[in-house]
This record gives sequence, C-alpha cells and structure tokens, in this order.
Amino acid sequence: MKRTHIGMDLQFEMEEVEAFVKQPDGSVFSWCERFHCYCHLIYGIANNSKSAKTLKFDGKEIFWEIGENLIQKLESENIVKQVFPLHDEKTRKKLLRTWALRWWDCTNQPIDDIYPYYGAKIAIYFAFLGMYTRWLFVLAAFGLTLQLVDFRSMKLVVLPVFFVVVILWAVMFCQFWKRKNAALLARWPLSSTVEAHSGYKIPGRKDSSLQSPMELIKVLEADRVKGKQVFQRYEWLGRFMRFRNDAIIIFSIICLQLPFELAYAHLYGVISSDVMKFGLTAVYLFSIQYITKIGGQVSVTLIKNENNENTEKRADSLVYKVFGLYFMQTYIGIFYHALLHRNFSTLRKILIQRLLLSEVLENLVENSLPYLKYSYKKYSVRHKKREKGESTDKFQFSSRVEKEYLKPTYSASIGEELEDGLFDDFLELALQFGMILMFACAFPPAFAFAALNNIMEIRTDALKLLVIFKRPVPRAAGTVGAWLNIFQFLTLMSICTNCALLAWLYDEEGKWKVEPGLKAILIMEHVLLLFKFGFPRLVPSEPAWVRANRAKHTTQAQNLCSKKLLRTISGGEKRGIKMKTG
Amino acid sequence: MKRTHIGMDLQFEMEEVEAFVKQPDGSVFSWCERFHCYCHLIYGIANNSKSAKTLKFDGKEIFWEIGENLIQKLESENIVKQVFPLHDEKTRKKLLRTWALRWWDCTNQPIDDIYPYYGAKIAIYFAFLGMYTRWLFVLAAFGLTLQLVDFRSMKLVVLPVFFVVVILWAVMFCQFWKRKNAALLARWPLSSTVEAHSGYKIPGRKDSSLQSPMELIKVLEADRVKGKQVFQRYEWLGRFMRFRNDAIIIFSIICLQLPFELAYAHLYGVISSDVMKFGLTAVYLFSIQYITKIGGQVSVTLIKNENNENTEKRADSLVYKVFGLYFMQTYIGIFYHALLHRNFSTLRKILIQRLLLSEVLENLVENSLPYLKYSYKKYSVRHKKREKGESTDKFQFSSRVEKEYLKPTYSASIGEELEDGLFDDFLELALQFGMILMFACAFPPAFAFAALNNIMEIRTDALKLLVIFKRPVPRAAGTVGAWLNIFQFLTLMSICTNCALLAWLYDEEGKWKVEPGLKAILIMEHVLLLFKFGFPRLVPSEPAWVRANRAKHTTQAQNLCSKKLLRTISGGEKRGIKMKTG
Repeated sequence: MKRTHIGMDLQFEMEEVEAFVKQPDGSVFSWCERFHCYCHLIYGIANNSKSAKTLKFDGKEIFWEIGENLIQKLESENIVKQVFPLHDEKTRKKLLRTWALRWWDCTNQPIDDIYPYYGAKIAIYFAFLGMYTRWLFVLAAFGLTLQLVDFRSMKLVVLPVFFVVVILWAVMFCQFWKRKNAALLARWPLSSTVEAHSGYKIPGRKDSSLQSPMELIKVLEADRVKGKQVFQRYEWLGRFMRFRNDAIIIFSIICLQLPFELAYAHLYGVISSDVMKFGLTAVYLFSIQYITKIGGQVSVTLIKNENNENTEKRADSLVYKVFGLYFMQTYIGIFYHALLHRNFSTLRKILIQRLLLSEVLENLVENSLPYLKYSYKKYSVRHKKREKGESTDKFQFSSRVEKEYLKPTYSASIGEELEDGLFDDFLELALQFGMILMFACAFPPAFAFAALNNIMEIRTDALKLLVIFKRPVPRAAGTVGAWLNIFQFLTLMSICTNCALLAWLYDEEGKWKVEPGLKAILIMEHVLLLFKFGFPRLVPSEPAWVRANRAKHTTQAQNLCSKKLLRTISGGEKRGIKMKTG
Repeated sequence: MKRTHIGMDLQFEMEEVEAFVKQPDGSVFSWCERFHCYCHLIYGIANNSKSAKTLKFDGKEIFWEIGENLIQKLESENIVKQVFPLHDEKTRKKLLRTWALRWWDCTNQPIDDIYPYYGAKIAIYFAFLGMYTRWLFVLAAFGLTLQLVDFRSMKLVVLPVFFVVVILWAVMFCQFWKRKNAALLARWPLSSTVEAHSGYKIPGRKDSSLQSPMELIKVLEADRVKGKQVFQRYEWLGRFMRFRNDAIIIFSIICLQLPFELAYAHLYGVISSDVMKFGLTAVYLFSIQYITKIGGQVSVTLIKNENNENTEKRADSLVYKVFGLYFMQTYIGIFYHALLHRNFSTLRKILIQRLLLSEVLENLVENSLPYLKYSYKKYSVRHKKREKGESTDKFQFSSRVEKEYLKPTYSASIGEELEDGLFDDFLELALQFGMILMFACAFPPAFAFAALNNIMEIRTDALKLLVIFKRPVPRAAGTVGAWLNIFQFLTLMSICTNCALLAWLYDEEGKWKVEPGLKAILIMEHVLLLFKFGFPRLVPSEPAWVRANRAKHTTQAQNLCSKKLLRTISGGEKRGIKMKTG
C-alpha cells in the first residue's frame, strides 16, 4: 500500500504515521483507499489449509476447496448476496442537515464533508454542479432582462452582444473550472498513484486481450531500443483501435440513428391529428429507449478491445461514444425544426417544452422511480416475512444492513461495469448545457430556467445519494473526466449554431447571399479550424513510452530510497522499523 | 546542488555517485550544470580575510576591500575582460567533421553529440530545424509538381487540395514536434529543477520590483488561507502586468509601425522612377533597423516589470513582443500588395524576391559579417602587437584563449540580457514558415526554396557556432519555448489568408457576394473561435499557488527523506556518509 507522503509517494510505514498527510476527517487513508483495502482483505480470504473444508449454513453444506476464494464461493451459492459499503448514519444525518435540506444558501455545498464520505469523484461532481449554477446566475439575469425589457430598434444589436457574452462565459467557465478542480485536489491529499492507475476493479473480471502496459514496461526495462519500438507499436495500435471504434459508432449514428430521428421529426411535423401524434411519440419513445440501450451495449463491447490505461480512461471512452447517441437523440429534432425550417416560434416552443417539462419531469421520475422500487421491495419482503409468521403486526427489519440491501444501487443507465450513477447526472447536465447554449440567441431566458433547475438538481441529487440509494462504491478519479471536453465541444458547436441563428434573424427573407464557391470555402475553413484544435486532443503531446519510462524511474527511485533506508538500518542498530509492501 | 537521481531529484552525494543517471558523455553533471557550478565558484571568490588586500598587476595596484567580490572587482578594473566558456578543440573538430561539413546526409545531425557540447537549448534548435526540413520535403515535392505539371481544367481543384494538405501538414508538424521534443528530453537526463527554475543568471543583476515567488512560498507556509490569497493576488497582478505590456506593444505596433509600413508600401507602388524607389527603400531599411532596435529596447524594459517565473519564461515573453514587430515589418508589405490590390503576379514576384534573394543574402551576411569582424579584430590586435614590437613577422597568438576572446559572442540582435543568438535563428525560421505557409496557394514552389534554404541553414548555423563564434553560454531549457506557439499562430493565420486567396482566385471579377451583415457575423465567429482557443493559453489551468504548494511539498519531502536518512545514520554506526547542500 502506497500513501502520499507530503507530495511524494512512499511505502506506508505504521511507525512513521505522523509524517503522512492526514485526510480532512483526520484519518490517514481516504475513504476510497480504505474501501479498496477492505475489498482486498475480504476477497483475499482463501482456503489455505491442506484439505477441503465443509461449511454449514441454514441446513446447507458447502465444500470449500483448497485455494478457493471464500466470498466468491459464498456468492455463487447465493449465501452472500452482495458486498457493498454501508451508510454511516451519523455522517449521513449530518450531511442531510447541512447539504440536502439546506435551502437558504443556493449553491454552497459542504464539499469538504462530501469528499471523505463519498470519495473524490462524487465530491467533484457536486463542486462542478455548484460552480456551474453559480455562474449561470449571471446569464440568467442577462437573459431575463432581454426577455422583459423591450429594446425596440436596439434589439438587433443586443442579441449579438448576448451571443458574445454567452460564448465568453462558456469558455471562461471551462477554464476556471479547471483551476477550481486543481485547487480542490490540492486541498485533498489524493495519492497520485491511486488517481492515475487504479479505480475499483471487480475481482475476477477479465482484462482486455491486448498486452497490459505493465508487461510492456518489463520489456522496456530489458531492452531500451526494442522496448521503445514495442511501446510505440502498442501506443499506435491502441490509437488505431480507438479510432476504429469511434468511426464505427459515428458511422452507425449517422446511418442508423439520424434517419430514424429525422423521420420522426418529419412525421411529427406533417401529421395533423393529435391522437396520431401522441401514438407516434409513444412508439418513438419506446424505440428510442431500446436503441440507446443497444448503443450502450455495443459501446461497452467495443471498449473492451481498447487498451485504455485504467478504468477511468475506459469510462471516459465510453462516455464519448454514448454521448454521441444522446446528442443525436436530444438535438436532432431541434435542429430539424430550427435550422432547416427556420421556424423561430416552433423552436422557442420546443425549447420551453423541453426545458420546463422534461427537466422537471425527469427530475421527478429519476427520484421517485427508485424510491417506489425500494418501497415495493421493502413491502414485498415485509409481506413475505409476515406470511412466514416471523413477526407480529409491528414489523421491524432485523437489521439496518438488510434495509440498505433493498435500496437500489447508484448505477448508470448504460454499462454498469464502467460507470456509476454519475453518468446519468453528468449527462443531464451536459444536455442542458448544450440546449441553453446552442440556441442561446433564440431563447435567452432559457438560462434562468436552467439555473432554477440546477438549484433543484443539487438538492435532489443529494437526497438521492443520502436517502434513496445504497452508498456508492468510491472512485478515486479527481476530475470530471470526459465531460469537460464535452462541455468544450458544445461551446464550439454553439458558436456555429448561434452564428447561423443570427444570420437567419437578420436575413428574414431566407435569401442566402453566399455563392456556392465561397460557401464551400467557408465550410472548409471551419473544418480545418476544428481539425487544427482537435488534433492535439487525439494525439497526446507525450508518447506513452516516455510516460511509462518516467513511471518506471519513479518506482525504481522509490525502491532505491527504501533500500538505502533498509541498508542504513541493517548496518546500524535494530530500531524495529518494518517496511510493509503491497 | 541537486541532481536527477533516477527520476527523483535528491541532494547530490559523492558517495552515491554510482546511483545517479549519467550524461550521454559519461559525466555526472550536464554541461549546463557544470558551467553554472564553475560560475558559482569563480564569482564566489571574495575577500574573507579581516583586512583589505592590495593586488598588483601590470604595474597597477588594486585594493581588494573586505567582502568584495574578486572577479567583479577585476572586471571593473578591466583586468579580467570577460568570463566565457572555451571551445573544446577535440570535440569541436569532431563536430565539424560529423556535423557542419557532412554534406551527403541532408537533415540528419548528431544531436546526441551536440547536446553535451552546447547544452539542451541549442541541441533542441537543431533537432527542430532538422525535423522541419525533413518534413518540408513532402510539401516541396507537391509544390514543385503543381508548378511543373499543367493541370488545365483541374487547376481549380488541385489548389484547394494543396491548401488542405499544407494545413494538415502544419498542424501535424507542430504536434509531432512536441512528441519528438518529449522523446529527446527523455533521452537526456535533464534535472527537472534546473529546467524549471534556473537559467543562467548574471550575478549582481537586479530582480524585478515585484515580490519573488520564494518569499511568497514562505508566506504560504506561515498561514495557509492568507498565503493563498496573497499568492492569488500575486498571480493575477502578474497576469495584469503582462496583459498591460502586451497591450502597450500591440497598440504601438498598430498606431506607429503599421502606418509607416503602409506608407512605404503605398509610395513604393505609386513611384515610377527606379532611382526614387531605390532611395525610398534605402531610407526605409535604415529607419526600420532603428525602429526594431527601439521596439526591442522598449520590450526589454517592459518585461522587467513582469513577474515571469524564470529567465526562460521572461525570454519567451520578450520573444512574443518582438515577434509582433517583425511580423508587421515582414508581412505587411505582402499583405498590402496581395490582399488589398489582389495582384497575384506582384505577390508572386515579391515572394520569389524575398525567398530567393533575401534568404540567401541574409544567410551570407549573417555569417560573413561576424567573420569579417573577427578577422578585422584579429588583424588589428596583430597590428598593434607588431607595432609594439612584441613579435617577429611570423606572428602567433600567445594563447588560444586570446584568439577565442576576439571571436564575437553568440548574441541576439535585440536585448542581449534575455536571449542569445538562437533568437535570430528561430526568428528567421518563423518568418520563413509564415511566408511559405500564409501564401501557399499563391506560390506553391516556395516550399522547395525553403527546403533548400534550410539544408544550407543547418550547415551555416553549425559552422557559425563551431568556427565563428565563442562557445555560447549553455541554457537549460529543453523546449523551443515561445516559438512553437508562434508557429501555431502562423498556422492559424495561414488558414485565413489562404481562404481569402482562394476566394479571390475563384472570384476574379472582384465582386464580393457577401452582405455586410453576414460578413460581420463571419468575422465575429472567427474572433470568437480565436478567443475560445486562445484563452486556455492566457490563463493556465493550474493556479500558481497550487503549483507553488506542490513545489514546497516536494522540497519538504526531500528534506524529510534526508533527515530520516541522517537520523538512521546517526542512530547507527558512523558510516561517513555526508550530505552536501546548496
């Protein structure tokens, strides 16, 4: 076990415990590290004796073979149903009071209390949500002013100003979030090794078919020149695999999902009967659920062939792919109505509808559905037990653990393996961000809706985590990951869409005065600009083998440092300092 | 003295010398580190005795006061004329053979031999020049094909294809250079501390009036919350100062230099008499030299008020400012002829003229002028000595040192304090890059000219360094610094200019079919895109106090590690391990 040792990762030594940076709650290890330790210990119990043992439980007899893992055996026999972290009632109640049910202070949250309870990733989500909402207030005020005040002849000047302000706001928000994130991480003593390499790995899960980086590092150690070549091949193969997967996803989105969405949008516009419209929407909603689920499954399968460095990187890769699906699904209808038909009143209507209804409804459904499920489960268990005659009228759960077991897990709607419930929360945020930003010029008060919605969102998400769900498995990652890039992509998109909206606003007759040649050149220019700024993201500026080399060096240095310590110790008197490894 | 200790910076210990990474030439310290040590030692000689001493030299008597620095005293008395590194004749001769005079292999250079002799910065320059030239061959071939083959009706399709290829080439070149740079740095054991913090500092030079970061770190140590605030104020004040300086420079370039350049370009176009033209150009060239010198001086003065972290950062800041001047000076005439008058034949003529004549001439002047100066100096010294009757007809210099002293220093044409001759070499490269890239569509064979010129440039620059100049003071920085950003900026510019060129090529009647409104929107869009991608460069994603905090932690950890070692040693037997500090 390695621990951050005032900025340097060293082997943890019990005797030197005072020298290590403490967590905000006073413990030496973070909640995430503790959880991984517990899992390691629990799943490490194996039959080390020389004969198979017989275990008895509830009248059943289980043979515990030599070397067999106890918990996995019990799980397969359905005796141990699940291993999950329990809520800590005292902290939970405190957080309920200071966080979920604190209504007067809109966006301030006790992030430093959330971090030790839920781990870095969830704390970062709420910090992000809080900062985003706080920043939204500026645009909400501006947007409402634009809606309420009649500027008359100035209107055509005010709207571009609003557009410019919105874009500047978005760019600065992304950048200042990065700074805030760095500041948060400086406050929490996250171990850099854990942050970079681990992520909770379910024991027994198979690794990808590609060579693992650890093996490659060994090759690099053996032969420098050959190792470098192998590493470069590994790096570029990985890039190619990822490129291929992205191409598959993009191709299938364009060829399969786009026609489907356009057909729905077109039919919805053409059909006049309300009943037919309702039926069409029902069919659409049913099938879209199905499509998204398939898309998620395909993405998860594809990602298994990528050689992403760690679980978090793999999750990021999944996020990009699945966001493509949701992007198409959410915005293509709006694009269809707004940009192709240039119908501003329809566009505004759709935006209000989506923002007001769907966001509020979604929030309600998102929270009530798991709660109803939980209640039903509780009821059915209670009912069963009562049938068995185990209890009297005044039924009590035998233990808190049993009650928590019935709670739903905080899991993603797609691919439980790689992402937890944060996926859905971030997705909601990103879709909202895209909606208000990309059509900012068409409907400025959208920002006020979004701000209100987010103030609600903070509370409901907090309640969800504290009351409805099981305590989630902590994740070590200390950034929002792929989502920040998605926010930046949406900012870029919104520059284009708003420009188009403005052009159409000023050119109401619908006559384009741009010749095909010039148009083509403009399009080309934009594509190139995109490439110019996108390429550095595709190919990192540091080759993987350099990074691996550095990592190797660091560990070597640590080993050397420890060895030196050991040598000086063994040379001197025995002072009883023991080094733990692993 | 700290040394890289297999990836971790530790105090250097003589006993543990085997554990430290060796330089490619087998020495423990790099040439740059050794040079700094020598300087430290030489300039560290002070009168530590209790009375002033009298030194005698050449009949003069000098009083060496208590505590006074010996070398500085001797320098002020003009006895020590200069402290500079000498050439190593053996390595110099070897490099002459394997590098400067190796003609058959065009772009391959013995970078790993250059690094230990000249330090990282110069080696990086030549690696950059080599890679740039190698990559240019592709475009040179394409450009020549375009010029030589008659595409007839396909011509209007081929040119945009060429444009796209050029831009992709430029973007990829910048990115792959970064990778190559990282790979080079991984090969050379550069100490990260030296790379980040030092740079050769002339003793006795005054620091800027702002607080130094070291003082701030002390504040941060004393009081966390207050220290953070102080640090943030320091960071933003520095950013504001830099912003102010940039604004001053940009403002004065636009208000003072631009009208001047435009006036020259206009007059040159209007005047018909060749004699008048010649006179005008002479006046222009004379005054432009003067303007550039003033601009450089102003920039150097302004930069003294900035709180750039280290000498390299300060040099980068200077490079940006001075490049603005040169950019205006080099391209404004071309822009005037090409873009305002849309005269393609003039544009081509100017491009050929500049590329062929000025580059070749510049190369010649750049190399012959210092050589002539050196020869003249040698001659005059010889003459003087002969007058004094010190020597017979067959005159020999008394020592190699004297001969090398007469050689000119490798210094920048502006601000010797912050930059050395690399400034001029990089400037030449950047101006060439801009010239061939920004007007790529107007004159495709320019790339072939540039490639040829660069093959020459490698040789002449190598010869310059090996034969003509004194051995330059080594710089620790391991990247090309500001110049890569300038290359990226020029790439962005070239997207715009080439689009304009293409638009004019296809629209030969000169009728713009874009309405003012749409035009304004397009301009706005581009400005915003620029801002979107420029802002992350202005504000780094990590606050300075976080970085300082980390640096503090690292040093603390190192201290702790050393302390622990010391304690275990002192607790045990005396093993004679001594720790050097400094």
